[in-house]
Amino acid sequence: MALVVQKYGGSSVSDAESIKRVAKRIAEAKRAGNDVVVVVSAMGDTTDELIDLAQQVTPLPPQREMDILLTAGERISMSLLAMAITNLGVKAKSFTGQQAGVITDAVHGKARIVDVVPTRVRETLDKGQVAIVAGFQGVTQSTNDVTTLGRGGSDTTAVALAAGLGADVCEIYTDVDGVFTADPRIVPSARKIDSITYEEMLEMAASGAKVLALRCVEYGRRYGVPIHVRSSFSGTEGTFVRADAYTAPRPGSPTSTADLPEETVMEDPIISGVAHDRSEAKITVVGVPDVPGTAARIFEVVAGSGVNIDMIVQNVSAARTGLTDISFSLPEGDGPAAMSALSALQAEIGFDSLQFDDQIGKLSLVGAGMKSHPGVSAKLFGALRDAGINIEMISTSEIRISVVTREDSLDEAVRAVHTAFELDADGEAVVYAGTGR
Amino acid sequence: MALVVQKYGGSSVSDAESIKRVAKRIAEAKRAGNDVVVVVSAMGDTTDELIDLAQQVTPLPPQREMDILLTAGERISMSLLAMAITNLGVKAKSFTGQQAGVITDAVHGKARIVDVVPTRVRETLDKGQVAIVAGFQGVTQSTNDVTTLGRGGSDTTAVALAAGLGADVCEIYTDVDGVFTADPRIVPSARKIDSITYEEMLEMAASGAKVLALRCVEYGRRYGVPIHVRSSFSGTEGTFVRADAYTAPRPGSPTSTADLPEETVMEDPIISGVAHDRSEAKITVVGVPDVPGTAARIFEVVAGSGVNIDMIVQNVSAARTGLTDISFSLPEGDGPAAMSALSALQAEIGFDSLQFDDQIGKLSLVGAGMKSHPGVSAKLFGALRDAGINIEMISTSEIRISVVTREDSLDEAVRAVHTAFELDADGEAVVYAGTGR
Repeated sequence: MALVVQKYGGSSVSDAESIKRVAKRIAEAKRAGNDVVVVVSAMGDTTDELIDLAQQVTPLPPQREMDILLTAGERISMSLLAMAITNLGVKAKSFTGQQAGVITDAVHGKARIVDVVPTRVRETLDKGQVAIVAGFQGVTQSTNDVTTLGRGGSDTTAVALAAGLGADVCEIYTDVDGVFTADPRIVPSARKIDSITYEEMLEMAASGAKVLALRCVEYGRRYGVPIHVRSSFSGTEGTFVRADAYTAPRPGSPTSTADLPEETVMEDPIISGVAHDRSEAKITVVGVPDVPGTAARIFEVVAGSGVNIDMIVQNVSAARTGLTDISFSLPEGDGPAAMSALSALQAEIGFDSLQFDDQIGKLSLVGAGMKSHPGVSAKLFGALRDAGINIEMISTSEIRISVVTREDSLDEAVRAVHTAFELDADGEAVVYAGTGR
Repeated sequence: MALVVQKYGGSSVSDAESIKRVAKRIAEAKRAGNDVVVVVSAMGDTTDELIDLAQQVTPLPPQREMDILLTAGERISMSLLAMAITNLGVKAKSFTGQQAGVITDAVHGKARIVDVVPTRVRETLDKGQVAIVAGFQGVTQSTNDVTTLGRGGSDTTAVALAAGLGADVCEIYTDVDGVFTADPRIVPSARKIDSITYEEMLEMAASGAKVLALRCVEYGRRYGVPIHVRSSFSGTEGTFVRADAYTAPRPGSPTSTADLPEETVMEDPIISGVAHDRSEAKITVVGVPDVPGTAARIFEVVAGSGVNIDMIVQNVSAARTGLTDISFSLPEGDGPAAMSALSALQAEIGFDSLQFDDQIGKLSLVGAGMKSHPGVSAKLFGALRDAGINIEMISTSEIRISVVTREDSLDEAVRAVHTAFELDADGEAVVYAGTGR
């Protein structure tokens, strides 16, 4: 008997019918002999509707009240799901983040989980019942105030609960079959990845792969929780995210990774996949005097405006003028803040002008194998050259190479690289409707 | 400076616009120098929509989950209201029943408040902020489970909080100007009652007056909380419900009854008002053998089926047959339960048949003054006789006389009695749209 934590997102519980379908799936997992804990998001568009209501009332809602408002969403979905499961003859009880012991810091709107004390969830399991827990929410220990976890919150709730309960696996149900070697909407021949390490998944998520939230993977890695990303529309196995990716799951035990055989596959794949990201922009500071300390001052000011910088490129200084250009990429939404912070600095630094470019795309090649395989970047650059695609910026980590291209050539770049690294499958990937978040 | 508890029902906060309007009213009360605690119901039809969702998922929702579902409604309204007040420059914080310390028993769906420990509400007031509290909900002390209070729950939350905080007054905002001498939709010349005792208000509420829930008045009487029923659409004073009704409120202190002058008005009114009720039905057990113990057995069985009996009439036994008829009134919805319980008893008792009649109406004349004024019932019966209205059942208490008539003559009966007791005002009463509950 395994202890399984299952997480269902808003699109899986968008109406009464889909709630009943999910309830059936949960009841089956329970009847198969597992202890089952379910983490659920708010139904469909509920969260957006609540945000809209708040904006009708005030342009600047206090974040504490916003959290109380938004947590109403999971309250509705979790109680309906518990009712639907009970209706199938399996006893189920729902719990708010507070009742489930999800303790967070007091940063409303993007609280971080500081502890999980799932006493009531454990009691419910001990009685042979299914425990339904509201995703995305917690409670502060000091003030007993309700908090929300921000983006990817429900995934993180699920993994944190799995860690707190010592679950055998945390199943994240979504509307795709798992993690793919590239976005199947761009690369129809993308393959589902059977298994991937936390580190690779982190790089994929940070590079634009949307199937799992970064913080959820981070949490899973820290506490060693095996994560199984799979479809809520089919029964097929999805992608396992875990410390040692290249062990084969035991046949007939799709939901448990306990007691897995220890031997690993002889030849690890070099590359896990190709991620892409259209959400970044590029700012170029033109005509910067090439004297020591100027770049430091620029990034000091940008960081001071609360902007996260991704990649940086500095041109070689033109000997004739003693001036250089500095470019950096950043989330598109941070553009205005960065531009106005830099603008205020123009007199002090004496640069010529600022350029803002949101027509960029980022491609990232991720794979733990590239550490020990030379020539990966050469092959990447060659593939892009052969496809006639210009590289504007480059950054690398131990297991990732990222390049910035024009946004309108990004799709072609992803396909070219996917093919060059022999990631293409024979058939086409199965893609389901919906957004999966 | 007074401590005021204000309660707004669902129709007062049905959309963003009305929430903003209520927020303005609350901010004004705060700026006038009062400490303000607000109890709020779920927005408009939210509760009905949630019930509908539950019924789509299962025909028999577990009551614990139903309570979690329904309490999402006040979570939404209370946080939006706190946002709207904050937007007006007055700090406000919202609290769930649990956070506000509303402790109940564990009877899900119709829990009773067993204690109120409003520590956080008090702290909020001490900081000079407005506290918004979710009506209709509480939490069990033993299991920390969410409960709902059932019908009239938000009114009861407000009065219980007022008692727990030692508030000067509990203002119940509704869509009428206060408590009237009769329903103004039936009696256009009905007058607003300025002041009424708890006992009279209890009799009015029990007799069909819908403006205040019975249990809220009971709670107010037990803890001596002055209740002010008033319109959320106008600024005029409504009806004060308190122990000594006939003291004049101190001028310029409309929301406080502390330090009221002690002298009472010399001549108390005899009659407070005429209530009516269409929600009852009558069951007649025909041909009951007139032997000792039969009636007791009948009402034992009816009570055992969970039915509340209101009035009882037993005919004089016909000497020729030794048989009698027994009639009693009960809430219409309890009809099926009572009928089937009695039906099962037919062989044992040996009565002829059962008759069910839902075409009855009940008129109740309420007034503390009738205790010391003889001839009130004679005057009542005379007025009905003059109007040609037949009386089917009668029951009395110290401060109430109720009669059952045909339902289709009830309106005329109310008007005739209202006039006979000189309750008619000169002009017409102002009635606002909406249901007020």
